[in-house]
Amino acid sequence: MKRTSLASWPCSIARTMDLIGDWWTPLVLREAFAGIQRFDDFQLSLGLARNTLTARLQRLVDAGLLEREPYQHNPVRYDYVLTEQGRDFYPVMAAIMAWGDRWLADESGPPVLTRHDTCGHPTHAVVVCERCGKPLTSDTVTRELGPGFPEHLRGRADVEARFPSSLA
Amino acid sequence: MKRTSLASWPCSIARTMDLIGDWWTPLVLREAFAGIQRFDDFQLSLGLARNTLTARLQRLVDAGLLEREPYQHNPVRYDYVLTEQGRDFYPVMAAIMAWGDRWLADESGPPVLTRHDTCGHPTHAVVVCERCGKPLTSDTVTRELGPGFPEHLRGRADVEARFPSSLA
Repeated sequence: MKRTSLASWPCSIARTMDLIGDWWTPLVLREAFAGIQRFDDFQLSLGLARNTLTARLQRLVDAGLLEREPYQHNPVRYDYVLTEQGRDFYPVMAAIMAWGDRWLADESGPPVLTRHDTCGHPTHAVVVCERCGKPLTSDTVTRELGPGFPEHLRGRADVEARFPSSLA
Repeated sequence: MKRTSLASWPCSIARTMDLIGDWWTPLVLREAFAGIQRFDDFQLSLGLARNTLTARLQRLVDAGLLEREPYQHNPVRYDYVLTEQGRDFYPVMAAIMAWGDRWLADESGPPVLTRHDTCGHPTHAVVVCERCGKPLTSDTVTRELGPGFPEHLRGRADVEARFPSSLA
């Protein structure tokens, strides 16, 4: 699979996409959030080729979202377990699922429900502002250049066009 | 690019991933949320091949996230404008960005900031329960089979293993 250099872009979305890579990676994470830890169980429920699964698991280990824990020796066999960084990806999955349930489900309804144990109700994710708690929507946000944006790119016309408020 | 049949899986994450397809698609959406509408402007800021950009824009039009609006006739030229379905994808992008800012930014900090116009503060996305408003985290949710889950798959051992609470 062709890789580009999105990892070095000054954009957390591009960097995350570089890490995610293709559609199998979120589905491997989906299984991990469902409690799957064994290679053969990932393979059974996803039905993808073993070499593809090996590569996706390795990518997630390299990126720090999964870690290997030996459950057997001679020969050694591993569980794939979510790290803190991996568990912290759950809200992204929940936001994807909410969007898909809204726009891609057929008339029979969502295939999978999420129950929030905290309140006991079936729920969907809502994405809100960490400061005021109100929804973050495309028409209520302004993008600004941040401290990690490279100096040498700040003067580019296409950058200025995309961050008008940062010029003030 | 190889396509699989994820669109027909009983999973809103798989269906969304099938639609997103590869890392360029979220980046095309990122540009659209930044106000980019013209083919040449997408091409300039993303730097991807024109045929790849054409395919990604077409996929987003076919999926209903973007629509073409003519801005010129003879020859006809189009703006690519977010639909309601497309604008509704913003929270997913915000959740991805929050995760990337937390785990993939270097010591200089996030490259891009999001200001919430509603409250006026720089912010990050938090993903919460639509019912109680508390955070949705991997250790506070239970997955259950939903009304759209196919009957013929409900008895499978791997399905039962992944949805234990649905058996009660």
